[in-house]
Amino acid sequence: MTPYDRLRDRFARIATVGEASAMLGWDASAMMPPGGAAARGDQLAVLAGIAHGMLVEPAAAADLAEAEAAPPAAPWDAANLRLMRHAHTRATALPQALVEAQTRANSACEKIWRDARAASDFAAVAPALGEVVRLACEAAAALAPALGLSPYDALMDGYQRGIGAADVAPVFDAYETFLRRALPEAEALQASRPAPVRPEGPFPEAMQEALCRQLSARIGLDYSHARLDRSAHPFSGGTPTDVRITTRYDTADFTQSLLGVLHETGHALYERGLPEDFARQPVGEAAGMAAHESQSLIVEMQACRSDEFLAFLGPELAAAFGGDAAPYAPGNLARLWRRIGRGFIRVEADEMTYPAHVILRFRLEQALIAGDLAVADLPGAWNDGMRALLGIVPPDDRRGCLQDIHWYDGAFGYFPSYTLGAMAAAQLMAAARRAVPGLGAALARGDLAPLLGWLRANVHGKGSLLGFNDLLRAATGKPLDPLDFEAHLAARYLQ
Amino acid sequence: MTPYDRLRDRFARIATVGEASAMLGWDASAMMPPGGAAARGDQLAVLAGIAHGMLVEPAAAADLAEAEAAPPAAPWDAANLRLMRHAHTRATALPQALVEAQTRANSACEKIWRDARAASDFAAVAPALGEVVRLACEAAAALAPALGLSPYDALMDGYQRGIGAADVAPVFDAYETFLRRALPEAEALQASRPAPVRPEGPFPEAMQEALCRQLSARIGLDYSHARLDRSAHPFSGGTPTDVRITTRYDTADFTQSLLGVLHETGHALYERGLPEDFARQPVGEAAGMAAHESQSLIVEMQACRSDEFLAFLGPELAAAFGGDAAPYAPGNLARLWRRIGRGFIRVEADEMTYPAHVILRFRLEQALIAGDLAVADLPGAWNDGMRALLGIVPPDDRRGCLQDIHWYDGAFGYFPSYTLGAMAAAQLMAAARRAVPGLGAALARGDLAPLLGWLRANVHGKGSLLGFNDLLRAATGKPLDPLDFEAHLAARYLQ
Repeated sequence: MTPYDRLRDRFARIATVGEASAMLGWDASAMMPPGGAAARGDQLAVLAGIAHGMLVEPAAAADLAEAEAAPPAAPWDAANLRLMRHAHTRATALPQALVEAQTRANSACEKIWRDARAASDFAAVAPALGEVVRLACEAAAALAPALGLSPYDALMDGYQRGIGAADVAPVFDAYETFLRRALPEAEALQASRPAPVRPEGPFPEAMQEALCRQLSARIGLDYSHARLDRSAHPFSGGTPTDVRITTRYDTADFTQSLLGVLHETGHALYERGLPEDFARQPVGEAAGMAAHESQSLIVEMQACRSDEFLAFLGPELAAAFGGDAAPYAPGNLARLWRRIGRGFIRVEADEMTYPAHVILRFRLEQALIAGDLAVADLPGAWNDGMRALLGIVPPDDRRGCLQDIHWYDGAFGYFPSYTLGAMAAAQLMAAARRAVPGLGAALARGDLAPLLGWLRANVHGKGSLLGFNDLLRAATGKPLDPLDFEAHLAARYLQ
Repeated sequence: MTPYDRLRDRFARIATVGEASAMLGWDASAMMPPGGAAARGDQLAVLAGIAHGMLVEPAAAADLAEAEAAPPAAPWDAANLRLMRHAHTRATALPQALVEAQTRANSACEKIWRDARAASDFAAVAPALGEVVRLACEAAAALAPALGLSPYDALMDGYQRGIGAADVAPVFDAYETFLRRALPEAEALQASRPAPVRPEGPFPEAMQEALCRQLSARIGLDYSHARLDRSAHPFSGGTPTDVRITTRYDTADFTQSLLGVLHETGHALYERGLPEDFARQPVGEAAGMAAHESQSLIVEMQACRSDEFLAFLGPELAAAFGGDAAPYAPGNLARLWRRIGRGFIRVEADEMTYPAHVILRFRLEQALIAGDLAVADLPGAWNDGMRALLGIVPPDDRRGCLQDIHWYDGAFGYFPSYTLGAMAAAQLMAAARRAVPGLGAALARGDLAPLLGWLRANVHGKGSLLGFNDLLRAATGKPLDPLDFEAHLAARYLQ
């Protein structure tokens, strides 16, 4: 066996332990009775420790050094070896004591945050958040030289390789400029048009679930390799040959469950389409969180909320739910599911204002990590940012800087992924429409196969061969470019 | 840290990996889509390899030797250390090559067996079974000197510590003698009485499930630490703080689901009652497969099929299902759920003839492991045994020596557990009735708390502190004794 072959074995074993953890994580959210939580925490911690131990063993470092002296010639294997090194560097750059301190501090802060958010009491969580930020800065400082990145980019790299703050900042600045003009225009246009009619429920859960299952299967999810279940917060989990998606049901409104399942199906289809030849290898994994979000959003936002697909979906919904057919008219569904408006809450935002929420967080978290913003000044900076970006100011911190779990759980550098994903989705969709004749006509028949075929070839099947910007370059001819997203929004909201 | 403390840590980590495997095993049977099977097999194999590796590491042997030089004084810790040594001995006695050969041979044979059973073609699987037996003999020969047991007992010990063939054989012989007299008598008595009336369905699955959940909760299962789901073969799995039981539903007949859930609840209550202070330690585990079966059978057979409990259950069922109440009269339920008869199939056998099926297998597998019976002669020996024990001869091997998976999957020494469990259940129930005033009256109110309290103190809470016979001795004043089981059968079937 060559050193590289030994590394392949090692990483396959590590990934297999990761699969076990992924399944246990799904179970914890979708199945586990509350009394199982303590033991589950131990199980996940032990498996994480085992996987980490397998990565940092001296034999791994020796094999890496030996393999790099005569790297494999095949591009996939060469990339795989580079990603092995990257994973090893990330795993060994942080002292064990720091990792443990972060685990403790993040967990403690997240607990305090739950109460602080409910009480809209930022002061109550500020000391704990201060400790979390301090340790995140320490981690960023340790990772940065090892990865050859800036401290903030080293954190971002943990969620999405191949793009950094210097790439993102001008893209976000350009979007801010666009939004300043487009949002008032879109609001005026929307106000000039009839309000949408809301379909009248109740919509029994079993009926919604059957519809979700049928539509997700129709757009490409193979249920011999997937499950759909329920959880408090919808997500996509599991493994490439056994994906688990979840949703929740509101009997008064099927919007959330249906569009949520279409979104999670996009994530699931990405996992299902990863290159089998490199299963359980770093190069065979999804390319990152922004890439993942691009795949959920291209299905949910680009394909399924398109006029074409709504022309197919409307009659399907009318037939499934019966009653008055008028609310299911495609035009009404478009007005219903494509409302825009300025709001305080990121997760409730429409696709035009959502990036503003992300841009705010991106700027603030860079300042926090750079030490340019003190935790105590966060609420004020937040409110100033909201005023500047959307012209509104949250009436309390619950609807302001306390709304998201991310920072309070130690996740800095994650937020950009949402908007990078949305922009990439538009850019990929534009390229797919250019490349695949009949793609739009197929959508109007409820047929996503042409789109999916193009995504399989240009995104899913590429695994982690390319970083984010290189993946876009190979698929669309250019790195991340906000113009496709702006054109998409202009076509949808400004005409 | 003392060597014993280090061992406690090590075994806790090993057990935690085992918990992860238990959850993945439950998922594979109750949740997993078929396409996940290959990856799941890898996940379980990797986790098993990791757990085995943690057990056989040189540091474990060193700590064991050091701890044994000055063993802990507290009885539980002393027993725990002995069980650690026992686990280590079992794990290190077999050469890795033999373990791998067994894994391959068992898996190959089991696959061939599925087709051979369907075709009733013993010759097709005989060569594969020959290899399985040969390797089992090799394993038994390697384990025997390490454990200080006979080869067959060394295999049995893998399922149930603390009882061997020399203890079991006279007990089984005595039962054969009892059966020869009792079975014809019971058959004659049954024939002289009215046939039971079968409740008329359909019984919707959701209604059965609600009833199963309600009754299992009533007899003590806390669903904040448990789940009830569906699987092809009902089982009890999971972990002590998160038990997972399953059943299957037949809309024409609720018997199987209901009694099956009561049976699995017995297993689950045992896991829930294990000593928390020794959670994830060898001494904190259930005492073995026979002990486990005693706990499912004491709930299902001893308690829930008793006249007392049926007096409570009958009206409950009548209220739940409505319709004609006559089939739910306790006397009718007793005749319906306590039918005896000679049959070919073990898993369909009543509680009086079931031991005959086990006695046959116990004798044959001892002969196979001793080399006294050639695989080619198994069908003939099987049929001779059935004729001698029950006076019937299977018309084909499908209903004879091909019916059970155990041997074809390499499990020798397991079969006695079923009947040891049935006998122990009767012996424990007799002791509990003597010790707990009002136990029967409580059963008649559908209240198992008095029985459960006694079991918690005398069985569940003992973990693996005692081997099988010692556990019975401590709880009932004597080692395994078939007379309590015979008395139970006589009271139920001969009066």
